[in-house]
Amino acid sequence: MAEPLRRRLPLLSLLLLAAGGLRAAERSGGSSSAMEELATEKEAEESHRQDSVSLLTFILLLTLTILTIWLFKHRRVRFLHETGLAMIYGLIVGVILRYGTPSTSGHDKPFSCSQEDRPFTTLLVNVSGKFFEYTLKGEISPGKIHNVEQNDMLRKVTFDPEVFFNILLPPIIFHAGYSLKKRHFFRNLGSILAYAFLGTAVSCFIIGNLMYGVVKLMKLVGQLSDKFYYTDCLLFGAIISATDPVTVLAIFNELHADVDLYALLFGESVLNDAVAIVLSSSIVAYQPTGENTHAFDAAAFFKSVGVFLGIFSGSFMMGAVTGVVTALVTKFTKLHCFPLLETALFFLMSWSTFLLAEACGFTGVVAVLFCGITQAHYTYNNLSVESRSRTKQLFEVLHFLAENFIFSYMGLALFTFQKHIFSPVFIIGAFVAIFLGRAAHIYPLSFLLNLGRRHKISWSFQHMMMFSGLRGAMAFALAIRDTATYSHQMMFSTTLLIVFFTVWIVGGGTTPMLSWLNIRVGVDPDQDPPPTNDSFQVLQGDGQDSARRNRTKQESAWLFRLWYSFDHNYLKPILTHSGPPLTTTLPSWCGLIARCLTSPQVYDNQEQLREEDSDFILNDGDLTVTYGDTTITANGSSGPHTATTNLDSRRTKSSSEEALERDLGAADHEVTSRGTRLVFPLEYNA
Amino acid sequence: MAEPLRRRLPLLSLLLLAAGGLRAAERSGGSSSAMEELATEKEAEESHRQDSVSLLTFILLLTLTILTIWLFKHRRVRFLHETGLAMIYGLIVGVILRYGTPSTSGHDKPFSCSQEDRPFTTLLVNVSGKFFEYTLKGEISPGKIHNVEQNDMLRKVTFDPEVFFNILLPPIIFHAGYSLKKRHFFRNLGSILAYAFLGTAVSCFIIGNLMYGVVKLMKLVGQLSDKFYYTDCLLFGAIISATDPVTVLAIFNELHADVDLYALLFGESVLNDAVAIVLSSSIVAYQPTGENTHAFDAAAFFKSVGVFLGIFSGSFMMGAVTGVVTALVTKFTKLHCFPLLETALFFLMSWSTFLLAEACGFTGVVAVLFCGITQAHYTYNNLSVESRSRTKQLFEVLHFLAENFIFSYMGLALFTFQKHIFSPVFIIGAFVAIFLGRAAHIYPLSFLLNLGRRHKISWSFQHMMMFSGLRGAMAFALAIRDTATYSHQMMFSTTLLIVFFTVWIVGGGTTPMLSWLNIRVGVDPDQDPPPTNDSFQVLQGDGQDSARRNRTKQESAWLFRLWYSFDHNYLKPILTHSGPPLTTTLPSWCGLIARCLTSPQVYDNQEQLREEDSDFILNDGDLTVTYGDTTITANGSSGPHTATTNLDSRRTKSSSEEALERDLGAADHEVTSRGTRLVFPLEYNA
Repeated sequence: MAEPLRRRLPLLSLLLLAAGGLRAAERSGGSSSAMEELATEKEAEESHRQDSVSLLTFILLLTLTILTIWLFKHRRVRFLHETGLAMIYGLIVGVILRYGTPSTSGHDKPFSCSQEDRPFTTLLVNVSGKFFEYTLKGEISPGKIHNVEQNDMLRKVTFDPEVFFNILLPPIIFHAGYSLKKRHFFRNLGSILAYAFLGTAVSCFIIGNLMYGVVKLMKLVGQLSDKFYYTDCLLFGAIISATDPVTVLAIFNELHADVDLYALLFGESVLNDAVAIVLSSSIVAYQPTGENTHAFDAAAFFKSVGVFLGIFSGSFMMGAVTGVVTALVTKFTKLHCFPLLETALFFLMSWSTFLLAEACGFTGVVAVLFCGITQAHYTYNNLSVESRSRTKQLFEVLHFLAENFIFSYMGLALFTFQKHIFSPVFIIGAFVAIFLGRAAHIYPLSFLLNLGRRHKISWSFQHMMMFSGLRGAMAFALAIRDTATYSHQMMFSTTLLIVFFTVWIVGGGTTPMLSWLNIRVGVDPDQDPPPTNDSFQVLQGDGQDSARRNRTKQESAWLFRLWYSFDHNYLKPILTHSGPPLTTTLPSWCGLIARCLTSPQVYDNQEQLREEDSDFILNDGDLTVTYGDTTITANGSSGPHTATTNLDSRRTKSSSEEALERDLGAADHEVTSRGTRLVFPLEYNA
Repeated sequence: MAEPLRRRLPLLSLLLLAAGGLRAAERSGGSSSAMEELATEKEAEESHRQDSVSLLTFILLLTLTILTIWLFKHRRVRFLHETGLAMIYGLIVGVILRYGTPSTSGHDKPFSCSQEDRPFTTLLVNVSGKFFEYTLKGEISPGKIHNVEQNDMLRKVTFDPEVFFNILLPPIIFHAGYSLKKRHFFRNLGSILAYAFLGTAVSCFIIGNLMYGVVKLMKLVGQLSDKFYYTDCLLFGAIISATDPVTVLAIFNELHADVDLYALLFGESVLNDAVAIVLSSSIVAYQPTGENTHAFDAAAFFKSVGVFLGIFSGSFMMGAVTGVVTALVTKFTKLHCFPLLETALFFLMSWSTFLLAEACGFTGVVAVLFCGITQAHYTYNNLSVESRSRTKQLFEVLHFLAENFIFSYMGLALFTFQKHIFSPVFIIGAFVAIFLGRAAHIYPLSFLLNLGRRHKISWSFQHMMMFSGLRGAMAFALAIRDTATYSHQMMFSTTLLIVFFTVWIVGGGTTPMLSWLNIRVGVDPDQDPPPTNDSFQVLQGDGQDSARRNRTKQESAWLFRLWYSFDHNYLKPILTHSGPPLTTTLPSWCGLIARCLTSPQVYDNQEQLREEDSDFILNDGDLTVTYGDTTITANGSSGPHTATTNLDSRRTKSSSEEALERDLGAADHEVTSRGTRLVFPLEYNA
C-alpha cells in the first residue's frame, strides 16, 4: 500500500538489496510495538518483491532477445541486429507498463519545515517519541514538487543514470579495447586518430552551431518554452557525436567485408566514444565567470580545452599504467600455472583502472578503454592459454549482456521516462544537423588523409563511413546522465529517437548499401590487400618483401615508426615474454638490468620451438578447433624468432623495421575473433 | 569537508554510483545560484572519489591475496588457506583504518520536528526557500542517536549487510551446486540429507539451549546489560550451525583424500547452509501473540515449522523449475551453435531463479543452490562443449572473487564495525556450545546411519567430520544481517571470532589431523572403494557387476531408487539429449508425445558413436589436455548406450537399475573438477 522506502535507487537497490538493511534498521526500534514494526517490515518486504519483479522483467526481456537472436542467426536474417531487437522488445514492455498499469500517486506529501542555513545531510525526525533517520537526496526546484508523485511501476523500472556510466559501459568499452584487431588498427592508426579526434570535434562544433540556429528559430516561432543556451547546443553536439556502429560492424564481421574499412570504422567508433565523453565533460566544465554566464568567455574556453586535454591524457595514463602493472605482475610471477588466479587478477586489475581514474577525478570509462588496449598488447602475451580464453570469454559475456541491456532499456525508456519533450522542429533539425555534421567530418578529412595515404580511402569507403554513423549506447548514456532541465530533457528525447532511427533504418540498410557501393565482401582478412601481405611469406625476406616494406613505411607515419621500434625493442621485452632479449637491444652498460628484466622464456621459447616444431603445429590446430570461432595461438612465443641466428646483430634500425612488418602481419594472430583458421607458427619456415 | 550525502549504501553506491544521479538532482535547482550549486556538486564529487578509494582498497586487498595465494600454492604451503589469508590482510587494513585515520564526527545534528502518526517515507524540507528531498532510512532508538556521529572512513568501508545475501552469496552457492560431484554425492545422499537436516536442527537446538544457560548465568553474574531472549539464543544456534569447511575441502581436493568423506563433508556443508538460512528466517518469523512475547507459544511454534517447510520447499521448487526450463530451452533450440548466446542465457536464467524466489517471498540463495544442482544434472548435458567450460569458468571466477571478498571483509569488520560487544563469558560459552553441538550431531547420527549403511562411516571419518565443522561466509552473512539490538551485536562479534578461530586454527590443523587419523590420501576418486566400482568395468556386465548391484541396492534407499529410475527413464530423456529414447520408456499410447520429446540426437549419437569410436577418444583426450584441470567429455552422449541392441526390451525394471549402476559410475564424468584424466567413452567396450 504505502510508498516504498527508497526513492532514487529503486531498481538498483535490488541489485544490492538495500531493503534488508532497512529492515534491520527498523527493527532497532526494539520491542516497543511489535505490530507496528511488523507492518513496516512487511512494507519493506513488499517493496523488495516489487524490485525483484522489475529486475525480472529485464531479465526476461534479455532472455527473449537471446532466443530471437538465435532464431535470426539460425535463419541468417541480417536486416535486424540483436540490439535493434532488444529495443523493440523494450518498446513493447514499455507500452505495456505505461498503459497497462494503474497510475498510483505517491503517498508522500511534501512536509515543510522551515530552517535556516544550508540543509543537513541527515535528518532525525521525532515522530510521536520515535526517531527516524532521513537522508538528503538533493534539492528539488519548487515547480517540480508534484513530479515526486508519479507512477509507481514506471519509477520502479527507471535506473539511476549513473548505472550506465559505471556499471554497463565499462565492460562494453573494455571489451572493445581488448578485442581491437591490432594489425589493421595500427596500419590505419593515423587516419583513425584523425577521424576520432578532429572528426568528432568538427562534428560536435557543426552540430552545436546548427542546433543553435534551430533553437533560435524555435524561439522566433514561439516553440520554446524554457531556456536553451549555446552551451546546451554544444553539449548536444558532443553527445550525439559518439558513433556506435555496432550493427554495421556485426554485419561486416559476418560478411567478411573489407578489413581496412572495418578497422577504420571500428577504430573511429572506439576512440570517438572516449573523445565524446571527455568533450561533454569539458563543455559542462565551461563555466564563464561574471554576470553573462552563457556567453563566450575566452578564459573559460581555454580552461575547458585544458580540462579536455587534462582528463584525456590523465585517463589515458591511468589505463596504460594499470595495464603495464598487470603485464609486469603476470610476467614476473608464475601465476600462469593457476588460470583461475590469473583471470581473477586480470579482472580485478582492469576494474581497478576504472576506480583509480574515478578516484583521481579522471574518466573511468576512457581509462578502461586504454587499459583494454594495453592488456591486449602486453598482458595477453603473458597469460596462460586457458586464461586467454577465459578473460576473452568473460568480457565477451559481460559486454554482450551489458550492451543488450542498454538497448532494451532504451526501448523501455521511450515510454517509461516521464519527462520527455518531443519538439518536431528540434528533432528534424537534429537529423539534418547530424547528417551535415557527419558529412563535414568524413569527406574533408578523407580528402586530407588521402593526400598522405598510399592506400587511398576510396569514395565508396567514404560513403560507407558516412552511412555508418550510427548512434548507440554511448550517446544514450551521455544524454540520460543529466535530464534535470528543459533543454536536457529535449536533448534526451531527441537522442533516443536518433538512436532508434539509426539502429533500425541505417542498420537494416547495411547489406544493400554494401552491394550498392560495390564493397568487397567475403575476403579473408589475411589474404588481402596486397596478396603478399601474409605472415607466412613475410618470413621469406625476398624481393616482394622489400617492396612491401616500402609501402608500409609510407603508410605508417614517422612518429608511429619511432614508437613502434621503441615498443618492439624495449617495452615488449620488458613487459612480456616475447620480443628480442633486452640484452641485445639495450646498451651494454645496462647489462645487469637487461638480464634481470629479460624473461628466461625468451631464450627457452626458441629452443623449445625448434625441438617441437611439428608438435606445435598440431597443438595449434587442435586449439583452433576447440575454441570454435576464436583462433588462439601460443603466441607468447611469436616474438623471439627474430633472434635465432645472431643475437647481437639485431640491434640495428632495419631489424626493428623488419619486425614491424612481421608484427603488423602477425599481431592479429593474438587477438582475432573471426572464423576458424589454421595458424602456422612463424618459425616453421625460417 | 561536509558529510557525504548518502548514508547507508556508502560503498555500494559506488558500485552503482548514485552520486551522479544526485548531481543531476541538485542541478535541477536551476541557475538560481551558480556558486552554491557548484559547491554541492564538488561535495558530491568528493564523496564519489572517497567511494572509489574505499572500493579500491578492497580490490587491492584481493589482488594482494591472489599474489600471496600464488606464492603459497607455488611453495605448497598448506597450513593457511586463501580465505584465512584474505582475513589476515583484511585485519591489517582494518587496524590501519581504525587507528590510522582521524576520527571525524559527522556534521549532521539530530533535527527534532514533532509530527503525528507514522513517518513519511519522503520528506521535502524547505530551507530558506529551497526544497530538499530526504528519504527515510529507518528508525533509530533514542539511545543511539549519537551513534550517528562516527568515523567517516570507517563507515565508508562498511557494506550494507544485504549485499552479502544478494550479491556475494548467490554465486558462491550456485557454484557449489553446479560443481557438486554427483556420483559420490548421490551414493551418500541419505547420509548427507540426515546430517544436513536432522544434524543442523539438532545442532541449532543444542547450541541455542546451551547459550540460553550461558545467558542466564551472565544475568546472574551481572554481565548482561540489556535483554537477551530465548529466541535470540535459538537464532544464534541457527546462525552458527551453518558449516563452511572451505579450507578443509580445498586441502582434501589437493591431497586427494577419501572421496566418500569428501562427499559427506561437501554435501553436508552445501545443504546445511540452505537449512541454516531457512531455519533462521523461521526463528525470526516466530512471533508469539499476546503479552508474553518471548515465551513458548505452540501456535507460533507450529507456524514457524510451517514457515520452514514452506520456504524450503518453495525455494527448492523455484530452483528446480528454472533449471528444468533452462534445460528444455537449451534442448529444443539449436542455441549450442552460438556458445556466447548459450552462456548468456544460462547466466540470465540462473540469476532469474534468485529474483523469482525473492519476488515470491522465498529465499533466493536456497533456490539458487537447487537451480545449480538441476543445471548440472540436466542443462549441462545440452550445452555445447565451449559453453560447458565457459559457464563453469564464469561461475568459478565469480565464486572465487565473492568468497575472498567476504573473508577479507570479515577481517576488516573486526576493527571497523562500530558496535562490537565482546563478552568473554558468552564467547567461551559459544565455543563450548558449538563443540558440544557438533559432537551431539555427528556421533549419534553416524551411529544411526551406520545401522543402515553397508559401507560404514568409520570412527576416523566421524572424528574428521567433527573436526571439520568450520564456520565461514554463511554464518557471517547471517550474523551481520541484523545487528540492531544488543543481543544481535554480541552474537555478531562472537560469530566473527568463531569464524576466525576455526578458519585459522582448525583449517591449519587439517593436514596433521588427516595423518593422525590415518585417513587415506592420494587416492584416485574413480579407482576407489571398491576397486570394481569403475565405469570401465561396469559395462562388462559379468558376475562382479551383480555383486556390486546388490551392494548399491542396499546403500541407496528405496525412495532414491524409485526417483532414480523415474529420472533416468523420463526426466533425462525429456530434458536432455541423453538417456534412453522416450519411445522405449513411455507406454505405447504416448507414442506421439514420446517421439516429439525425444531428441533426434539420442538416436544420432548412437550411430555417430559407432562410426567414430576412435575419433571420439582422441577428441576426448585433446579436450582434457586443453582445459587443464577440468575434465570435459562429450557427455551428452553417455546415456543412450543402454539402447544399442534392442530398443524395446529395455523397458524393464532391471534395465533401469543397471543404468543406475552405470550412471552412478559415470555421472561425475560430467562435472568433475579434479586433475587431468583420460575418460573412456562408455560405448567403447560394449
